[in-house]
Amino acid sequence: MRARLTVVLVGARNPSNIGAAARAMRDFGFSDLRFVNDYIVPFEAAQLEATKSAVGAADVMKGARPFSTVADALADCTLSVGTTAIGGRQLARPVVPLKDAAREIITELARQNSRIAFLFGSEKTGLTNEQLSHCQLLVNIPMFAPSDARHLSMNLGQAVAVCLYELGRGGFENARELSAIPEEQITADTRERLTQLLIGAMEATGYSRRFPANAREHVVRQLAMQLGKSQDEATTWMGFLRQVLRSAKKDAPG
Amino acid sequence: MRARLTVVLVGARNPSNIGAAARAMRDFGFSDLRFVNDYIVPFEAAQLEATKSAVGAADVMKGARPFSTVADALADCTLSVGTTAIGGRQLARPVVPLKDAAREIITELARQNSRIAFLFGSEKTGLTNEQLSHCQLLVNIPMFAPSDARHLSMNLGQAVAVCLYELGRGGFENARELSAIPEEQITADTRERLTQLLIGAMEATGYSRRFPANAREHVVRQLAMQLGKSQDEATTWMGFLRQVLRSAKKDAPG
Repeated sequence: MRARLTVVLVGARNPSNIGAAARAMRDFGFSDLRFVNDYIVPFEAAQLEATKSAVGAADVMKGARPFSTVADALADCTLSVGTTAIGGRQLARPVVPLKDAAREIITELARQNSRIAFLFGSEKTGLTNEQLSHCQLLVNIPMFAPSDARHLSMNLGQAVAVCLYELGRGGFENARELSAIPEEQITADTRERLTQLLIGAMEATGYSRRFPANAREHVVRQLAMQLGKSQDEATTWMGFLRQVLRSAKKDAPG
Repeated sequence: MRARLTVVLVGARNPSNIGAAARAMRDFGFSDLRFVNDYIVPFEAAQLEATKSAVGAADVMKGARPFSTVADALADCTLSVGTTAIGGRQLARPVVPLKDAAREIITELARQNSRIAFLFGSEKTGLTNEQLSHCQLLVNIPMFAPSDARHLSMNLGQAVAVCLYELGRGGFENARELSAIPEEQITADTRERLTQLLIGAMEATGYSRRFPANAREHVVRQLAMQLGKSQDEATTWMGFLRQVLRSAKKDAPG
């Protein structure tokens, strides 16, 4: 069950923070680590840091995989959880305190063929709205907010440690493995295909031109989250959206 | 109430770990930090690390006080809580999982004139039996223990973060509650308008003809349930579906 949890570090740069995150994973028994970076991750430096801090953390680092986009890193995941400090931005979506999200995450972990991704942003900026738009669940570690609340952000390794601790705390060990999955879960790559089809349908029908604000990619991604609770339903939605495209294109000039 | 909690670092040497512990304290709203060392604590280095990591952490470091013995550091405390990874030693006393100890600690904190100390040992050795003997309560952060269980020990900053998170989690007086943003609920009539628009769009685009089984009203109604978690989102979906209708009708004969 622990093998089905993935930690995704988006834009992490500091080797000692990456090493600390790997160590926290090892401490709580997790091993699938992924990076999303638009430059080469300082793997060797992070690996060295991990080795310095604890034996097992180096193993986590060795198995870590780099991805160039958030969508790629999440492709096989059935639930993606974004961590956010909220900060100055106003998020249009509800953010759930970590402890309240734990049960939902553990339930999903208990399903066979599930894969849960826990996303952490860079220390400087956290996860951007675009990055958060790939997540079905937004969680927050409640912190104490005095006057300088805008600057609240946790150390990366500490945030990873707290999140993984909370999962273990929720009786993870005792969570029953659910052998029978009622429905085939939708993976993030199917989700992304739905998003792109919906964007295409909005463009082809002229909706995007009339309501550009509603057609921005991260907004549409949120809408596409709602399409289909099972793989079957997702297939139905994709069929319908393809038909919308076909129908609209017949009408297009040329 | 938060002012009555004290973090005591016993034998901490690494400035960056001390800085990380100070940062975790600041993140969760605590400020009374004490050291017990048999040599001069590298205060300046730790202070520098703390400054690098976060503004508030430097304030915690500035107020930190050194003591030469555990007994001195705990002199004014009404409850002393020792953290231990248990490890190879056989402890004669019961060790309570952190989450089970939280309630007792919070109850004590709520008493006026109380002072609770949370003791953390050095990363290398943890707290010795002698040091633990000053504590009324021994707690443990449950970790995942594979074959190399003897070497289990958490990073100091992460251990402090997890312990203080657990206290806040237990419904601490000042813990900032982040409630989900209330959204306007969708009424059944909006829901039905969505259903009818979706049926219309399926017919207009030719989807119903190609996949009649998926276009049956009760099937479509289930699909329409997914459209929009708020009134705003429902409005967006209705706008899109109307545009699909418009787009398809331009192409229709007559």
